[in-house]
Amino acid sequence: VHKQHLAELHALLDDMHPADVARVLEALPRDDRLLVWDLVRVEHDGEILLEVSDAVRESLIKSMDSDELLAAAETLDTDEIADLAPDLPQDVIQELLESLDAQKRARLQSTLSYPEDSVGALMDYDMVTIRADVTLEVALRYLRRLKELPDHTDKLFVVDRDGAVRGVMPLQRLLLQDPDANVADVMAEEVVTFRPEDEATDAAQAFERYDLVSAPVIDARNRLVGRLTVDAVVDYIRQESDSDMLSIAGLREEEDIFSSVWKSVQNRWAWLAINLVTAFIASRVIGMFDHTIEKLVALAALMPIIAGIGGNSGNQTITMIVRALALGQIHPDSARKLFTKEIGVAALNGLIWGSVVGLFAYMLYGKPALGLVMMGAMTLNLLLAAVMGVAIPVLMHKFGRDPAVGSSVLITAVTDSGGFFIFLGLATLFMAYLK
Amino acid sequence: VHKQHLAELHALLDDMHPADVARVLEALPRDDRLLVWDLVRVEHDGEILLEVSDAVRESLIKSMDSDELLAAAETLDTDEIADLAPDLPQDVIQELLESLDAQKRARLQSTLSYPEDSVGALMDYDMVTIRADVTLEVALRYLRRLKELPDHTDKLFVVDRDGAVRGVMPLQRLLLQDPDANVADVMAEEVVTFRPEDEATDAAQAFERYDLVSAPVIDARNRLVGRLTVDAVVDYIRQESDSDMLSIAGLREEEDIFSSVWKSVQNRWAWLAINLVTAFIASRVIGMFDHTIEKLVALAALMPIIAGIGGNSGNQTITMIVRALALGQIHPDSARKLFTKEIGVAALNGLIWGSVVGLFAYMLYGKPALGLVMMGAMTLNLLLAAVMGVAIPVLMHKFGRDPAVGSSVLITAVTDSGGFFIFLGLATLFMAYLK
Repeated sequence: VHKQHLAELHALLDDMHPADVARVLEALPRDDRLLVWDLVRVEHDGEILLEVSDAVRESLIKSMDSDELLAAAETLDTDEIADLAPDLPQDVIQELLESLDAQKRARLQSTLSYPEDSVGALMDYDMVTIRADVTLEVALRYLRRLKELPDHTDKLFVVDRDGAVRGVMPLQRLLLQDPDANVADVMAEEVVTFRPEDEATDAAQAFERYDLVSAPVIDARNRLVGRLTVDAVVDYIRQESDSDMLSIAGLREEEDIFSSVWKSVQNRWAWLAINLVTAFIASRVIGMFDHTIEKLVALAALMPIIAGIGGNSGNQTITMIVRALALGQIHPDSARKLFTKEIGVAALNGLIWGSVVGLFAYMLYGKPALGLVMMGAMTLNLLLAAVMGVAIPVLMHKFGRDPAVGSSVLITAVTDSGGFFIFLGLATLFMAYLK
Repeated sequence: VHKQHLAELHALLDDMHPADVARVLEALPRDDRLLVWDLVRVEHDGEILLEVSDAVRESLIKSMDSDELLAAAETLDTDEIADLAPDLPQDVIQELLESLDAQKRARLQSTLSYPEDSVGALMDYDMVTIRADVTLEVALRYLRRLKELPDHTDKLFVVDRDGAVRGVMPLQRLLLQDPDANVADVMAEEVVTFRPEDEATDAAQAFERYDLVSAPVIDARNRLVGRLTVDAVVDYIRQESDSDMLSIAGLREEEDIFSSVWKSVQNRWAWLAINLVTAFIASRVIGMFDHTIEKLVALAALMPIIAGIGGNSGNQTITMIVRALALGQIHPDSARKLFTKEIGVAALNGLIWGSVVGLFAYMLYGKPALGLVMMGAMTLNLLLAAVMGVAIPVLMHKFGRDPAVGSSVLITAVTDSGGFFIFLGLATLFMAYLK
């Protein structure tokens, strides 16, 4: 690239929002990405690292030395450093901890101690607090001295001497109400609060339900420890739905689309291996019936239909149940109702689609009995898919596992092996009528 | 249920947030749901209808007569009525339109005219505007007269005489800056704005990128027409990710888990039918090779492995590409790089997993040539999966289709039929060594 061009690019990058620079970096192949990354101002490095995806962040951090990383991290807030920490080398984290003051160090350490999907990992420390026993006028004067409020400050947190949350003061009320009134009389006392150990999913649902912009995070003694804001929640929702989609497809994590072949293979091998095991099992099920197939080769051509439709139908059921579980719509009382309903759907589908495939088999091979076996096998496999499609996620949920992860692979394994077994088994039983 | 209990339930429901009542309704089987719905105060009906899922909303609306629906809708804002409108009977909408004043009627009609996934369909009309040539003091006095600001008002929109947006005034600045200053000197002039015809996805990404709480929506002549807020954006993101997940699994839309068997069958039949067609095709591909299978029945047991792993690997590739397309990370220049990379991944996986399945086949059937055919077929099918996994979504995107919908079904169809063809074709070619 021409030097002139580099200078222009430099100037352009300086004017861009860090989030936009992040987007550009994501879309560039590796070499170009590192070239552009070198042109970015050091002061923006930290913010951009926060904005890029995990996979791209890793590639950028690998290109930086310890001093550069320290300089980047020092431009960030404690909660933001915590977000970067998993990707930083140990010695950089150590040096960072030493460079922070006591309060910040304690906050960084406690943020790092919360599990990834908890409120504690998402919260920040940019809360503005006031006391209940002052007038709005006094509160306003205090705010003016601060010069600037943190982003997403839609309310101030009203705390007492011990730091316990007594209410919240929406900025709106501060603006609109009589300045001589007391904070205690104007504040909202019914507050949606969270605990650091709360699940992030539940907090996200509460933000959606009550249309929150920010909310206090408190400890067991009601003392303010942090703040959760809607931008962190939105990022979390996006990330969750992404990772659901990726794990359904059998990818372990987000992948940098321009990553090396070897990295991609590593990211994808686990699910391929699991799939291979289930495919081997299905293969052995078919192997059990090789004498049957020898007698009637048509069975080999027909059996993938039974397995395929079963898998499709099972995936429909399981997706619906996983979603309903995530939204808290399934209670022990209603599980039986769901079984009954899904079995009804399967029976009806079995009748409809079973007739279609039965007719297809009859027309192709001219044997009515073969059509009936197809129809019977289809119905039975759809029933199996329905029962397992409800049972697998409900049981996983009961034993505290995430029902989304691997549920699709499991149900497909069941409907494949089960479908082959049912179809070839029925064919073996009724072979006299099929020949 | 006892009358006493009903009275208690009544009181309990009155105290609950509409969003919480909505959640309860979602989790109740049909009969109980309608019982509880009757106990809800009429004034809350509208808000609750907005909060429940499409499927449940339909069931609730069906239980109401026109007068009840009108009463419920009249408690709502114009943009909220527009959200309900698709589910309301035509005569109720007509009566509603007649009952509204001219401005609201015009707004409702224009909101209804925007496509579902546009900013126009998501925006509301709760904007608070001020002029640039007044002091902050004057602006504050004006706000105090309003008594209350709409939810999610984090900034006021500064407009000129013609209604054109000249800037925004964050509430923060209104609070913190000198009251004698002019709005024009304090306001932010660089504003993220949207147009009603913008895609909602792009707006959602902008909200995430710039951490917005609210933003003005303007027309071609820069005049303010509405407001987009983060809660509408969050709802949209959630709904989008849900519908992606559902369409991957082959469900047409969100389903009320307690809906009737017949309704469920209707929701699911389309994808099952498509799947059936692709399964028939795969079946005919196998049928082409029945003489080969007759000679070596082991092929029937092994062929699902080739098809299955190909499908799994193709789904991994396609999911990654669909996601990268949605995030705007793929440009025409980089598409070739992606092809090269995915082909590399497929070749490496073919070598690794091909060896594993080859060894498996050799150990089971004691024929080295069978192992080699398995390995070759696996590699070729993985290459096919890689090429189609990139090509299908990129082409769908190029022709303006949503690459997420149906991509999984398409790639599986290709890897199934393709896998059977490749494996059985190779086996036919090398039959002399396999017998």
